[in-house]
Amino acid sequence: MNIFLVFAHPEGRSLNGTLRDIAIDELKAQGHEVRVSDLYAQRWKAQVDRADFPVWPMDERLDPRLASKHAFVSGTLTDDVKAEQEKLEWADAVIIQFPLWWFGMPAILKGWFERVYSHGYAYGVGEYTDKRWGNRYGEGVFAGKRAMILMTTGGWPHHYSARGINGPMEDILFPINHGTLYYPGFDVLPPFIVYNAQRLEAERFDVVSSELRQRMRDLFTIRPIPYRQQNGGDYRIPQMLLQDHIKPGKAGFSVHLRDADEEAPSGAARQGDEA
Amino acid sequence: MNIFLVFAHPEGRSLNGTLRDIAIDELKAQGHEVRVSDLYAQRWKAQVDRADFPVWPMDERLDPRLASKHAFVSGTLTDDVKAEQEKLEWADAVIIQFPLWWFGMPAILKGWFERVYSHGYAYGVGEYTDKRWGNRYGEGVFAGKRAMILMTTGGWPHHYSARGINGPMEDILFPINHGTLYYPGFDVLPPFIVYNAQRLEAERFDVVSSELRQRMRDLFTIRPIPYRQQNGGDYRIPQMLLQDHIKPGKAGFSVHLRDADEEAPSGAARQGDEA
Repeated sequence: MNIFLVFAHPEGRSLNGTLRDIAIDELKAQGHEVRVSDLYAQRWKAQVDRADFPVWPMDERLDPRLASKHAFVSGTLTDDVKAEQEKLEWADAVIIQFPLWWFGMPAILKGWFERVYSHGYAYGVGEYTDKRWGNRYGEGVFAGKRAMILMTTGGWPHHYSARGINGPMEDILFPINHGTLYYPGFDVLPPFIVYNAQRLEAERFDVVSSELRQRMRDLFTIRPIPYRQQNGGDYRIPQMLLQDHIKPGKAGFSVHLRDADEEAPSGAARQGDEA
Repeated sequence: MNIFLVFAHPEGRSLNGTLRDIAIDELKAQGHEVRVSDLYAQRWKAQVDRADFPVWPMDERLDPRLASKHAFVSGTLTDDVKAEQEKLEWADAVIIQFPLWWFGMPAILKGWFERVYSHGYAYGVGEYTDKRWGNRYGEGVFAGKRAMILMTTGGWPHHYSARGINGPMEDILFPINHGTLYYPGFDVLPPFIVYNAQRLEAERFDVVSSELRQRMRDLFTIRPIPYRQQNGGDYRIPQMLLQDHIKPGKAGFSVHLRDADEEAPSGAARQGDEA
């Protein structure tokens, strides 16, 4: 299979660099093809700006959303963005690797999504009616592909636990896993997280390394996070509210995951139907 | 008072530009001083990299955390970063303005925090013992100052409501409000959010404009989000878990807000004690 790893750390001789190399080594040992975008090494331009839309008239007001759609449809995206989209299309699975900084992706990686996720490509796709609300949240250009976060953080696991002061890690990552990866159709795997990254002694490193190799072997068999498909019947359209009979009285990020014992909704759309 | 507005939109002739001008106009009418960092206009470098630490040896492995501390302590941060820190110190209130992109800050703004929030300045400050765990979450360099988000989003309010598919907006913003603003000591005000930003007809614009002016008049009187001080007695240190008797059985971001009827913990640290 084809694996695309996006790497967002400024130093290859870092723990992240080591983990990347272990992951790649194991993936290749399994017979996979691997391609890497090392964002710092390739001097990725982090911010979306006018230079991303070379045919957008210089004196016209820049609406990044409209300009993105125009550039995508007219084939005038910049070459660096086209190259990343090509890698995404080539991939069967995508690994997004980064250190957690201020409870989110490093800027260079956030900007990778902003620039590569063109309007008309990763969002604003499909019909918007009272039956469907675009191809998103479980449908979209990346339907049928898998994606996962591979991440380090200096924090301790219990600081990120259910009652830890930073908030639960699954909630901190929800805007990425659900809002950025599941949105354009990826099946999102549970993240692989290394805590206490500044104090990773040799013994624990061996455990982490071994677990990472195992995860790479399981990449195509592990069960994705069971997010609910938007157009599958669980939501009222176009309000996009969870139907009243599902998890009544509950709220928050977690209601958007299906319980193990929940029946699949009868009207569930098949992924990729309209891709 | 002194107000510092950080603006992260690539186009001044945008709704965000208009809202910024309204906010500034009202603040000046109230007799405040206003300074603005227009990140795109000043060509802010978004990503943290080796160039941020000019005296860090070129052949030495780059640990962004250690390099940041070293540059801060030795006074060798780059001039653009020093200028932003100076504006933060000058300010009594900080307004962080941006369009919500992929459920987070634009890359250029994320990178502003990554570069301006030096190690030893905005984090990694104070004593780490079994009594205190640094000056953070309610204490720190910005204690006594206020901060708030001023934001636009193309989404509809109910898409961001308690059971809306995007997740509740207050949870989406928690990593910024709690993790990035409250962390180094700001009192964080409720965000000012314009929904449906691509379809803001004249009548609603008048309402938004009027509400924004009112918010600017209330900037120093409105009640901050009642996040819990880390070192005030509500958490077990160093586990950083909410004490068992507080909101027993509850979990998630919301447990880190104090209820209106909760008593202040007797051991509450006064903000700024160790700043």
